[in-house]
Amino acid sequence: MCTCRVLLLLSKRFYFFSNSNQQARLTHESPGCVCVCVCGTRDYNPKQMAIREKVFNTVVACFKRHGAETIDTPVFELKETLTGKYGEDSKLIYDLKDQGGELLSLRYDLTVPFARYLAMNKITNIKRYHIAKVYRRDNPSMTRGRYREFYQCDFDIAGQYDAMIPDAECLKIVHEILSELELGDFRIKVNDRRILDGMFAACGVPDDKFRTICSTVDKLDKMSWEDVKNEMVNEKGLSEQAADLIGEFVSMQGGRDLAERLLQNPRLSQNKLACSGLSDVKLLFSYLELFQVTDKVVFDLSLARGLDYYTGLIYEAVLTQAGLSGDTLNGAEDSVSVGSVAGGGRYDGLVGMFDPKGRKVPCVGVSFGIERIFTIMEQKSSADKVRTTEVQVLVASAQKNLLEERLKLVTDLWKAGIKAEVMYKKNPKLLSQLQHCEESGIPLVAILGEQELKDGVVKLRVVATREEVDFSRADLIREIRRRTSEA
Amino acid sequence: MCTCRVLLLLSKRFYFFSNSNQQARLTHESPGCVCVCVCGTRDYNPKQMAIREKVFNTVVACFKRHGAETIDTPVFELKETLTGKYGEDSKLIYDLKDQGGELLSLRYDLTVPFARYLAMNKITNIKRYHIAKVYRRDNPSMTRGRYREFYQCDFDIAGQYDAMIPDAECLKIVHEILSELELGDFRIKVNDRRILDGMFAACGVPDDKFRTICSTVDKLDKMSWEDVKNEMVNEKGLSEQAADLIGEFVSMQGGRDLAERLLQNPRLSQNKLACSGLSDVKLLFSYLELFQVTDKVVFDLSLARGLDYYTGLIYEAVLTQAGLSGDTLNGAEDSVSVGSVAGGGRYDGLVGMFDPKGRKVPCVGVSFGIERIFTIMEQKSSADKVRTTEVQVLVASAQKNLLEERLKLVTDLWKAGIKAEVMYKKNPKLLSQLQHCEESGIPLVAILGEQELKDGVVKLRVVATREEVDFSRADLIREIRRRTSEA
Repeated sequence: MCTCRVLLLLSKRFYFFSNSNQQARLTHESPGCVCVCVCGTRDYNPKQMAIREKVFNTVVACFKRHGAETIDTPVFELKETLTGKYGEDSKLIYDLKDQGGELLSLRYDLTVPFARYLAMNKITNIKRYHIAKVYRRDNPSMTRGRYREFYQCDFDIAGQYDAMIPDAECLKIVHEILSELELGDFRIKVNDRRILDGMFAACGVPDDKFRTICSTVDKLDKMSWEDVKNEMVNEKGLSEQAADLIGEFVSMQGGRDLAERLLQNPRLSQNKLACSGLSDVKLLFSYLELFQVTDKVVFDLSLARGLDYYTGLIYEAVLTQAGLSGDTLNGAEDSVSVGSVAGGGRYDGLVGMFDPKGRKVPCVGVSFGIERIFTIMEQKSSADKVRTTEVQVLVASAQKNLLEERLKLVTDLWKAGIKAEVMYKKNPKLLSQLQHCEESGIPLVAILGEQELKDGVVKLRVVATREEVDFSRADLIREIRRRTSEA
Repeated sequence: MCTCRVLLLLSKRFYFFSNSNQQARLTHESPGCVCVCVCGTRDYNPKQMAIREKVFNTVVACFKRHGAETIDTPVFELKETLTGKYGEDSKLIYDLKDQGGELLSLRYDLTVPFARYLAMNKITNIKRYHIAKVYRRDNPSMTRGRYREFYQCDFDIAGQYDAMIPDAECLKIVHEILSELELGDFRIKVNDRRILDGMFAACGVPDDKFRTICSTVDKLDKMSWEDVKNEMVNEKGLSEQAADLIGEFVSMQGGRDLAERLLQNPRLSQNKLACSGLSDVKLLFSYLELFQVTDKVVFDLSLARGLDYYTGLIYEAVLTQAGLSGDTLNGAEDSVSVGSVAGGGRYDGLVGMFDPKGRKVPCVGVSFGIERIFTIMEQKSSADKVRTTEVQVLVASAQKNLLEERLKLVTDLWKAGIKAEVMYKKNPKLLSQLQHCEESGIPLVAILGEQELKDGVVKLRVVATREEVDFSRADLIREIRRRTSEA
């Protein structure tokens, strides 16, 4: 599984990723390590692709069930399109080399290209999904399923609609997909940027510190409150009193009841922004009840999310039962949790940033961090035998000099839409043909021999039972269809 | 359709592509022009995506019918992986900016990453397909469906097998896919690098000029023989006599008979390389007859193909009936033909270049230039109404204050796996809900009104016929399934 040696020879260098997520160039013999490709990317082998296809099918089926169209955008955008959209994370953007022409960057997410697409095409309402790879110059961590190239599966609703109806549908979709994938128990945390901003104001955070304090709050899922407070006070210069007030709020979790209670809170109820956020969260929960998903949704005041472009509701789904076992991952500490598997929110201002007249198109959406989901699915299925082809029948020969007959028969099967193959040898041994079926999970073998040719029949062998029956060519196709549609 | 104005405002610059394929910065008002995105890439809108999905489904179904697995590789490779593989075309490779770490380049095709993957994982036989985008800093031409970012659909067979059996299957696949896509008539030209090299030797081309003369021959599909000869003699310093001898050979076309005749040719039959190539072409045609595809395959001595890595059989599929009409494309001259839509060949040495011990894995494959196929399909379907969603039923309300009831019903439908949507308004007008169905091609409407709620039924309306029948909730799902499985 570890391809270090080849990589080492191939590229004369590779990265080693330790548990602490720091990269260093070490020899690949170091114990307890996970090695990834030099660029923090990975190849998918056929087994991984079979799992990936299954995950995508589930995700796409859900998006289509909810009536979404799909679009695609180029892998690179003008550098200026991405500038100023991601806050502190902008340093993680991959730029293309200036080889003449425009300055280009690899897309960092699918949301900014979507907003650019809407503005460019003057689209004011659409419900679309987009599944594609995005790029971040981050420290990869294979144990957490974090790479520098990874798939995102995005679903977004753009348009001027009544409050919280599309937002609730996004959460419904998260609930459906995570349930169907059977990844274990999960929670969907929700909060609202207006509540956060109102809370910061109510706690006495100066206006110009909202964003930077917000990104410190965002670290609460990885750092203790003490460390977060320390960063606020000592690094970002917030008063201790303000930090303590924030500390009270960000420990609160609940549902509709919490929104109602906070609407009565003496500090927050004074703040207009906070009140409109809280009323919307209350309304959201009433729709979530109708959608039957409140069992997994938590209103959590510590949820901040890093990106600059959110303007209203924000949410993040986390798996609460770790799907990954530490043992299978060389005991790496961070393998216990894969963290967030989906996140999103409302971004009503982003499209306007791309429109020459600044016309706004309200949007809300969700993005699935599908790479982490693959990592879990892969480990769950590592014991299972996953078929990587769909071949229904191998056309085999029992004697020599029957290549022509095999090619003729497989042509007939292909014409009938049957998934079939022959071995690319003039005279393969019957045993090696049967072995190929065992290894690849091909259920049937159509065997041609001199006797069969004389009788005008084909011997159909069921690999699992070794049962063999002769069929005329006309009956053969029907029989293969019958047997493989059952399977 | 022309998005110049927005682009102009957005980026303050854009490209204009004239018929002669040269790029210039002109105002977008210039007549008879086709404008593309600044970077020579394009967005796919939902209608284009629906067509793309259809094409991919056909292609993937064929690959799976022939027993292929699939893999995926990262969009960028180490720069050194791509170096020295593409001959003169290497200048078209997109490099990433050096931001610390490895020097990376965007993949130029899927073949080199495939070979790197095989060597790295020590895989000696596999039949795989790979559908992904590749990148070339070429002059884009939208009329020919040529972009700087485009999809390739590759099918390759790696392994030590008996001659020409996998090669013939690749041609069979080209035949199946181009036939099924109904793009119009086509030809598959085949030749062999060994025949070309033998021919060059027999014509007196010096050894060190084989590659450069080969790339001149490759231009015969775009240039007249006179111009090609001129380039050979005056630019590349070949003797006129040698050029004339080449001229005789490259005008030859035929089938198995031509291979047999050339095996008797006094010049070629002296050359060992040429003879093994010609014998293999002869053998190939015998397999193509069994595969029933000789109607479209031509042995054409002028086919050269540009890439360095081919070692044996080469082939290219061209549409002979232009799928594009000049009229719809602003009269651009080059719109009459989209040129080659698939190409490939045998490359027995490429994997060895990535293996530390130089171990070879023989490979043969084919790549579909799917972007050109999309361009044709798009134009063919421009008159048709293409549905971009698969929504089966809209849950609508006939009176006000029924949002909750709509949300409850659509939840039931989603749970039953039915593709359904609601409008995101508290109180949408029935007329606007029905209009939405007309526009999106949604066949059914489930209407809730006060009377229906009182009676415990839902009114199901067929959009096309305006027929309306009341159903109980239990019967509703069955009825929707029945009516939409028919459609």
